Amino acid sequence: MAAIGFIGVGNMGGPMAVNLINAGHRVQVFDLSDDLVAKVVAKGGFPANSPQAAVDGVDIVISMLPSGEVVEALYIHQGHLLEAIPDGALVIDCSTIAPHNARNLAHAAEKRGLAVIDAPVSGGVAGAAAGTLTFIVGGSDANFERAKPVLLNMGKNVFHAGQNGAGQIAKICNNMLLAVQMIGTAEALQLGVDNGLDASVLSDIMLKSSGRNWALELYNPWPGVMENAPASRNYTGGFQVDLMNKDLGLAMEAAIKSKSATPMGGLAKSLYAAHARDDHGKLDFSSIQKFFSLSKKWS
Amino acid sequence: MAAIGFIGVGNMGGPMAVNLINAGHRVQVFDLSDDLVAKVVAKGGFPANSPQAAVDGVDIVISMLPSGEVVEALYIHQGHLLEAIPDGALVIDCSTIAPHNARNLAHAAEKRGLAVIDAPVSGGVAGAAAGTLTFIVGGSDANFERAKPVLLNMGKNVFHAGQNGAGQIAKICNNMLLAVQMIGTAEALQLGVDNGLDASVLSDIMLKSSGRNWALELYNPWPGVMENAPASRNYTGGFQVDLMNKDLGLAMEAAIKSKSATPMGGLAKSLYAAHARDDHGKLDFSSIQKFFSLSKKWS
Amino acid sequence: MAAIGFIGVGNMGGPMAVNLINAGHRVQVFDLSDDLVAKVVAKGGFPANSPQAAVDGVDIVISMLPSGEVVEALYIHQGHLLEAIPDGALVIDCSTIAPHNARNLAHAAEKRGLAVIDAPVSGGVAGAAAGTLTFIVGGSDANFERAKPVLLNMGKNVFHAGQNGAGQIAKICNNMLLAVQMIGTAEALQLGVDNGLDASVLSDIMLKSSGRNWALELYNPWPGVMENAPASRNYTGGFQVDLMNKDLGLAMEAAIKSKSATPMGGLAKSLYAAHARDDHGKLDFSSIQKFFSLSKKWS
Amino acid sequence: MAAIGFIGVGNMGGPMAVNLINAGHRVQVFDLSDDLVAKVVAKGGFPANSPQAAVDGVDIVISMLPSGEVVEALYIHQGHLLEAIPDGALVIDCSTIAPHNARNLAHAAEKRGLAVIDAPVSGGVAGAAAGTLTFIVGGSDANFERAKPVLLNMGKNVFHAGQNGAGQIAKICNNMLLAVQMIGTAEALQLGVDNGLDASVLSDIMLKSSGRNWALELYNPWPGVMENAPASRNYTGGFQVDLMNKDLGLAMEAAIKSKSATPMGGLAKSLYAAHARDDHGKLDFSSIQKFFSLSKKWS
Repeated sequence: MAAIGFIGVGNMGGPMAVNLINAGHRVQVFDLSDDLVAKVVAKGGFPANSPQAAVDGVDIVISMLPSGEVVEALYIHQGHLLEAIPDGALVIDCSTIAPHNARNLAHAAEKRGLAVIDAPVSGGVAGAAAGTLTFIVGGSDANFERAKPVLLNMGKNVFHAGQNGAGQIAKICNNMLLAVQMIGTAEALQLGVDNGLDASVLSDIMLKSSGRNWALELYNPWPGVMENAPASRNYTGGFQVDLMNKDLGLAMEAAIKSKSATPMGGLAKSLYAAHARDDHGKLDFSSIQKFFSLSKKWS
Repeated sequence: MAAIGFIGVGNMGGPMAVNLINAGHRVQVFDLSDDLVAKVVAKGGFPANSPQAAVDGVDIVISMLPSGEVVEALYIHQGHLLEAIPDGALVIDCSTIAPHNARNLAHAAEKRGLAVIDAPVSGGVAGAAAGTLTFIVGGSDANFERAKPVLLNMGKNVFHAGQNGAGQIAKICNNMLLAVQMIGTAEALQLGVDNGLDASVLSDIMLKSSGRNWALELYNPWPGVMENAPASRNYTGGFQVDLMNKDLGLAMEAAIKSKSATPMGGLAKSLYAAHARDDHGKLDFSSIQKFFSLSKKWS
Repeated sequence: MAAIGFIGVGNMGGPMAVNLINAGHRVQVFDLSDDLVAKVVAKGGFPANSPQAAVDGVDIVISMLPSGEVVEALYIHQGHLLEAIPDGALVIDCSTIAPHNARNLAHAAEKRGLAVIDAPVSGGVAGAAAGTLTFIVGGSDANFERAKPVLLNMGKNVFHAGQNGAGQIAKICNNMLLAVQMIGTAEALQLGVDNGLDASVLSDIMLKSSGRNWALELYNPWPGVMENAPASRNYTGGFQVDLMNKDLGLAMEAAIKSKSATPMGGLAKSLYAAHARDDHGKLDFSSIQKFFSLSKKWS
Repeated sequence: MAAIGFIGVGNMGGPMAVNLINAGHRVQVFDLSDDLVAKVVAKGGFPANSPQAAVDGVDIVISMLPSGEVVEALYIHQGHLLEAIPDGALVIDCSTIAPHNARNLAHAAEKRGLAVIDAPVSGGVAGAAAGTLTFIVGGSDANFERAKPVLLNMGKNVFHAGQNGAGQIAKICNNMLLAVQMIGTAEALQLGVDNGLDASVLSDIMLKSSGRNWALELYNPWPGVMENAPASRNYTGGFQVDLMNKDLGLAMEAAIKSKSATPMGGLAKSLYAAHARDDHGKLDFSSIQKFFSLSKKWS
């Protein structure tokens, strides 16, 4: 079992830390919110009153933070956390951030003699709680292998996308495609319904045909088609529009830098931005179905 | 076993007719091309030198034609074929046409006392040959049940989408979503590769994540990722860009009529139209990957 | 002065007919609505109780109707109006309809020995009242020259786009570009304001720079920038979203037929379709500005 | 007359510096390329062998540089040029850069007691040579007034967009709209031609109608319509696709930061990115017309 410093225990980080505790690790927890720390401590974590205290004596540091700026500030600039981490420890940053932020962290950590991987997750709050997250890792083969058992304590799929930063790129690409497919699914369902089809029947047909995708399988955006999907509980829970917008912003920044054409992804970004401005930012991202709906239908 | 008149035995219709013959039916074949007729006759079909001759004495009429105009012309207007079909026969039109053309055929056939369903297919030339097509049916419950055994002689999935015309709508919705997903997949792969990822690794990650779709499962657009996909044989075979454009045109016409918003589908239509103008109309539709590629990469 | 039969005297046709009366013509008026007829009669028109009565003894027939289906039904099919029009008369159809409807009318009229042009208008209700409409004409040189003086009684610009149907094509192309520019202007203004600029200052800069367009000149979509624009009166008056959607639908149908790529026009169609579904169909088309605005800003 | 340090004398900066010389100013010139410096010296400039030497004793510093990173590096970080500029001098940065880079420069300059404005230009190489550029200025009223006479030595329009950074925002918004309109114009022309219209006739009609924009006025993208437009000389000269992509990238970055929806601008970015990948990066941006053209038409 390892000693692990865990920084950032919000909606995602909190249940992840608990799963590590349940797997038998010693987990030292820090967050700017004492309440969030307390929740993990109640499950067996050890509270730390600073990031430095959290990493004291650990083998592994895991962070789950809201942005690349925060990650760099904590580890490198204002926070200087890298200096406090024990020699030889492995740093696993699970935040979803820009690839260049991930590479900056990697360079700084390597200078300091620390191993580091980027390991953004997918699977949402539900996956964090159930321990079924997917981790998409960027880093060396050796560091990937070293991190894998710990990641499997928090999830069920661990992918190795490439060198440092590659985990972020792969996640960005996946989520851009996810956004495109969700919107494409929503507009196909609405087109069918507008022309007299039943949303469930059409969903079933497309699910078994070449239109099949993850949304049709597990996350149908039409209310009532899937009992357990956010669409059937007024688009609450799930993956918020605001978070999808963040990921799409990262995708667009990457595309600008690499001079890549992303017509579908770019359109998805604008539609989700408009959707957020229309007061839907806190709803699940499958609520884009409402964008296509007949006026007042669900209001 | 039934006596079946089969009209239109090209790339799709030909192997479909052969599968009916192999199932033990008597199949009377007509096509404007004698060569195409001869191919089916060589497998046991009976040649007819007119559509009227093809439907003489049959229980079932199946047609596979290139457009709604041709369907209406054959059955209703110039061809008056409905008049020649025996009382009580079932007409199965497998052409992909506009829903209003399908409904026009249904109305005219019902006046004449004939049962009729629209049953457009997906699965392509390979599926037609292998007998693994999917049929998406519009028509009454009774006519659907009556057609089902015969359709299962040519395919393995038969869906009932709704009343007459609904088969066409469902197919149009599915193929619009398919186009969106194929383009979305192509641009996600290119964005990843532009940022240092390996296309196979990224494909594998997305396939197991929320970006999963039919293209990633069976039809990866990046050359070399899937040995048997059109992308790995220079985008030959498969489902042509020109045919995807036809289906997207039907989707856009339906959306105009129903005042539906289809931003992703509309963009897919324009990108495939531009792709066709760039001399790619005869390639498989996964060749849209080339649209995103670095200059000269595969030339 | 000419004897003119005028069919369809609604928001547009009514003031157009009055301008013909004011120019000294004898104008015989028919509309399905007696009230609309009465309004023109009050200004000096002669009421007709059927289309046939309206064209009795005239030199020129002018129609302003809502769709190509109605135009064909009136002149050719159910209405058989072409048969009632005096030999040698000139038919001027000012409706905005699909080019193929215009060509069908032309063919049928020519068979009957009548001259015909399509002459869709731009300039809106205000232009119809002020006699400042623009006519975009499709037809032969001779028929164009013949129609020109009468058209100039109702407008100030008369363009000859080409043969029959070309007037419709040109109008469709213009309005598609107009929609693209209006949306482009709205999103540029919002982007500027979101980043601290004043909408009037930014409008003025773009108006004098390469972003200049008709909307910035005469029809600014941001409330308050132009006192007389629909944006400054809650987007009332002007050119309704529903009508823009109709024209964009005609543009998309033309593009499907000619296999043209129209990515911007297609996106405009979907955004206006979504805007209409969001209960804005009766507002002026510059209300698309609301699509981009910060939540609740103007509600 | 003023003493002016001018840094960056390429395609744009070179002729701008010459116009200052012609207006009677003393201009001290630096560029990484000695050849570029020599060209300006041949017209009466004074060569400087470092940025520090160029600003020695000057009243005004003008820079024209390729990116925000270069601007920050020169003035603030590696270059420390701000420290060498005489007290009280006015810094005019004419580079097109991100607003946040402009604001960073402003903050750093103000700390040092220097006045600074951002003054990106439009009008291209031809405008730079002819002294007809448009400057879009961000900065205080006082600094704007101070800069104005000097800017008018190089251009004919000077706009005050707002505080520091506002010049960049306004330029970005303008160029995003320009890109949208250019593409919209190109697709409208192609749609018309595909349906039988003449590009010149259609251009003339739209120019006098609500489709009017700067491209139709001065920069028609269809070859042969305007003798002096880049389209009529194989899209050489003018404003390169690569530069438009740079500006669209800045627009997208601004939109991501401000959470603005820019569907048309985003689509323009992707179409220009694809166009650049198709080996058109060095052509004028009106060459997007080729994207829409019939296969092989102009090859």
